[in-house]
Amino acid sequence: MHILAAQINPIIGDLKGNTQKIIQAIQRGRTQQADLVLLPEMALSGYPPEDFISLPHFLKSIQVHLEEIISATSGIAVIVGLPRQSQKILYNSAAFISNGQLIEYIDKILLPTYDVFDERRYFEAGDKVCVHPFKGERIAITICEDLWQHSGLLQSTYYQRDPVLELKKENPTVLLNLSASPYSVSKFDKRAAVCIQAAKTLKCPVILCNQVGGNDSLIFDGYSVHVDSKGIIQQAKGFVEDDLLVSLHEKSVHLTIKRDPIQDLYQALVMGIRDYFEKLGFKKACLGLSGGIDSAVVACLAAEALGPENVWALYLPSRYSAPESERDAQRLAQNLNIKFQILSIEAPFESYLSLLAPIFEDKAVDITEENLQSRIRGMLLMALSNKFGYLVLSTGNKSELAMGYSTLYGDLCGALAVLGDLTKQQVYALAHWINRDKERIPWYTIQRAPSAELRLNQKDSDSLPEYKVIDQVVQAYVEEHHSPEHIAKKFDYPLELVQELIKKIHQNEFKRRQAPPALRVSEKAFSVGRRFPIVQRWT
Amino acid sequence: MHILAAQINPIIGDLKGNTQKIIQAIQRGRTQQADLVLLPEMALSGYPPEDFISLPHFLKSIQVHLEEIISATSGIAVIVGLPRQSQKILYNSAAFISNGQLIEYIDKILLPTYDVFDERRYFEAGDKVCVHPFKGERIAITICEDLWQHSGLLQSTYYQRDPVLELKKENPTVLLNLSASPYSVSKFDKRAAVCIQAAKTLKCPVILCNQVGGNDSLIFDGYSVHVDSKGIIQQAKGFVEDDLLVSLHEKSVHLTIKRDPIQDLYQALVMGIRDYFEKLGFKKACLGLSGGIDSAVVACLAAEALGPENVWALYLPSRYSAPESERDAQRLAQNLNIKFQILSIEAPFESYLSLLAPIFEDKAVDITEENLQSRIRGMLLMALSNKFGYLVLSTGNKSELAMGYSTLYGDLCGALAVLGDLTKQQVYALAHWINRDKERIPWYTIQRAPSAELRLNQKDSDSLPEYKVIDQVVQAYVEEHHSPEHIAKKFDYPLELVQELIKKIHQNEFKRRQAPPALRVSEKAFSVGRRFPIVQRWT
Repeated sequence: MHILAAQINPIIGDLKGNTQKIIQAIQRGRTQQADLVLLPEMALSGYPPEDFISLPHFLKSIQVHLEEIISATSGIAVIVGLPRQSQKILYNSAAFISNGQLIEYIDKILLPTYDVFDERRYFEAGDKVCVHPFKGERIAITICEDLWQHSGLLQSTYYQRDPVLELKKENPTVLLNLSASPYSVSKFDKRAAVCIQAAKTLKCPVILCNQVGGNDSLIFDGYSVHVDSKGIIQQAKGFVEDDLLVSLHEKSVHLTIKRDPIQDLYQALVMGIRDYFEKLGFKKACLGLSGGIDSAVVACLAAEALGPENVWALYLPSRYSAPESERDAQRLAQNLNIKFQILSIEAPFESYLSLLAPIFEDKAVDITEENLQSRIRGMLLMALSNKFGYLVLSTGNKSELAMGYSTLYGDLCGALAVLGDLTKQQVYALAHWINRDKERIPWYTIQRAPSAELRLNQKDSDSLPEYKVIDQVVQAYVEEHHSPEHIAKKFDYPLELVQELIKKIHQNEFKRRQAPPALRVSEKAFSVGRRFPIVQRWT
Repeated sequence: MHILAAQINPIIGDLKGNTQKIIQAIQRGRTQQADLVLLPEMALSGYPPEDFISLPHFLKSIQVHLEEIISATSGIAVIVGLPRQSQKILYNSAAFISNGQLIEYIDKILLPTYDVFDERRYFEAGDKVCVHPFKGERIAITICEDLWQHSGLLQSTYYQRDPVLELKKENPTVLLNLSASPYSVSKFDKRAAVCIQAAKTLKCPVILCNQVGGNDSLIFDGYSVHVDSKGIIQQAKGFVEDDLLVSLHEKSVHLTIKRDPIQDLYQALVMGIRDYFEKLGFKKACLGLSGGIDSAVVACLAAEALGPENVWALYLPSRYSAPESERDAQRLAQNLNIKFQILSIEAPFESYLSLLAPIFEDKAVDITEENLQSRIRGMLLMALSNKFGYLVLSTGNKSELAMGYSTLYGDLCGALAVLGDLTKQQVYALAHWINRDKERIPWYTIQRAPSAELRLNQKDSDSLPEYKVIDQVVQAYVEEHHSPEHIAKKFDYPLELVQELIKKIHQNEFKRRQAPPALRVSEKAFSVGRRFPIVQRWT
């Protein structure tokens, strides 16, 4: 039997467009003589559809489009993911369609409701596993998380059921999985291990068809796979739409896959930017280049994602900007062949200072004046955005967001925070990777000590511990939920330091709440999936 | 038997402070010879604790503080809400403690996971209902939502169980309910009806102890009640901490309660502001007064919440500001006795215009120049906030947030959006209520046509339909999830108009994502509990 796993990139809510993509996949399946076309989880609605599935007229429209898909399946079978309603209860389901007939719905049993997932907000759990006889095979159909519990790789869930184990007594000859499994660094290896574990237990091949594409903060990497108990047999491309044509039970060679996690990270961010713009109907981005590493990396990613002709870099110096900053910003723009412009913020800065002088009187210069500079830059970028239809890219990283080392309505301005889920050290790693065969980012930008240049000779290290320390605490506390005591002991840091950093993380919740959405690349991003109150007194 | 329902105002995560409040309530119970002290849902952690309960060291600390509470119950019984963990599974529970001993945990059965509630993200459902013999009574203990299903007043849930009905065969003599039931307009009447319905079915009195206080966007109104099948017997105050001392089964008179919903709304917003500031450790607020109705109402609320001496109103005129705006802003500040200052934005506006002139070249004046003015105002308010430690209050309303009739990083600046969940018509109603016995808000402010004053002779009605139309569509679509076709028919509006407004609502998701938290007063606020993607193609 031949199965075409169609790794498509749906747009949330675009039922018409997604239906077309699904029907085109069916046609490709037919052309390639597939017996069955497998599509991702929620392929029809896009994932995650969020509160759209609370709208009754949205659900009605899902039904109308499902009918259209069914009528396009003459002579072929299709398994497609969608929300379905039965007696007012909603399920996250797969429709098994064959030759113009809806054969059956299969409902997702394990509903992830942690981090970025909210499935129990919308859905009830499916009841039973079952195996579907089709062309001599016994096909088990599962949806995303249903495959994961069996692997033991889910850390923080306590599901009462293990659908893979339950399927064992049904003796499937192949297991199909519809996924919308988001990217995070090294997630692919985990996902492949999950499939191989199921293949071992069930003694049959596993085909996982994953969604690809960016939806707001979430990046779906694709990388659909065909595995057996011994390893990966086939793998679709990452970060693009792709088909995997599987000939079941043929003698197969196993792939040895070594992927560079930094290259994946780069591709993930590029796709995240590209899809955010394309799906919103924008083409052009502007950003402030500071001569520092963060904005340099964002410029490189934007040029790759949107084309250099669509990126406009502004160097916005103040009295505190070093000459090297201008030199490097300009050189970077030349290297990337992006539009470059210098616009001094001194005149508006002076104007604010003299307007406020009578009110500020003899108050000392402090963070107020630093924030003014950052906010003037934000305003100028937003003015260009408004006048010329560019979206502003925000350049802050996760370590800064954790510490609140950023200005609300200043450098936090923007439509998308490209590096908002990367630690400072990951930003450095990405910069080195970008420069792997030639200088794109000027080397001095990478080597200089980080500075916001908002006062004379300022260095980030004046107000913050080393980024290495911040990054470790952020990872241990934000991503791994360890206690301050555990963290202090693990890294041999003073407990007071760790407590102070954790306090800062919570205190700056108010800034992050108004920050642009950040592309998620870790298991726990600030932008989505981490939910803490602003008003609290735990720390 | 005597029961003291202690309607306390906990702070999320403040386990030490909340424990003290709980122990003080126990002492008050003892003083008043109560046999039992009833506290709200999650009284120990504060509600909603969100991801704090994913932190293992937080849960450990809950246990430590529970021990402290237990040891303070000599000679008295206490029922207190808290998260509890059993074999790694979390429950939303009530601890029934008596005379220094933990008697039993009662777990919440119905876990709301819609709108602002995310309980299935954290908790598993309790298993069984039961009745606890205590001092000759048979006490049924339920937690918040467990009471609601029976009333038939839950519109959008499809729970499989009805704990009140299940309790019937246990013949309780009193039903206690621990609640953290947030305010929305007219919610009290609903909540009382829910209690009375349970009292009818169970033929016993019902005592509901509700949390009070503001937590971020959520406002808990308190109004704990004691009812029987015939009506309300006792009711605690709204919007403040209060105790309800109940003598069970005494002959009782029923209260006839008529509350003014606008007065409640006013009190809710005042408490929302006050708690946001107090719990964050701030005292003072600043805001821009425009001479329009929204900022006038916010100034009144802030003066009431924080004291007039802690409110600083800035009038920030441009070339487009009418003389009446200055006159009214000043008069309002005088009426309220708040600090008032005029700061023209012309100089920075000119400075931006000339800096940008070479780039803008012959481009026509458009929204860019309007946004510049709004953003200069935001920057000035933020500068005062930074220099003097004020929090900025944002003044936009729900109708504007729906339409995107507001400037990101401009009038959307602020720590708290006081009116962010009020329609324009509710803002008018509030203004009239504020002026009910004398002019606080100048009448011209209320009567004039709404204008952003960002260009010559601008009126809101130049770019928007009447607010009455917007408010109806927002309510029908955002709060009630009706389809455009249904809405057009219901109000006899052209379908194209309704579709256009709904399109605007979705298109402006990106602005709302970066808006300050808004105090929630409706059943569906933009700020929390409504989750739609920015990138989508449904509209």
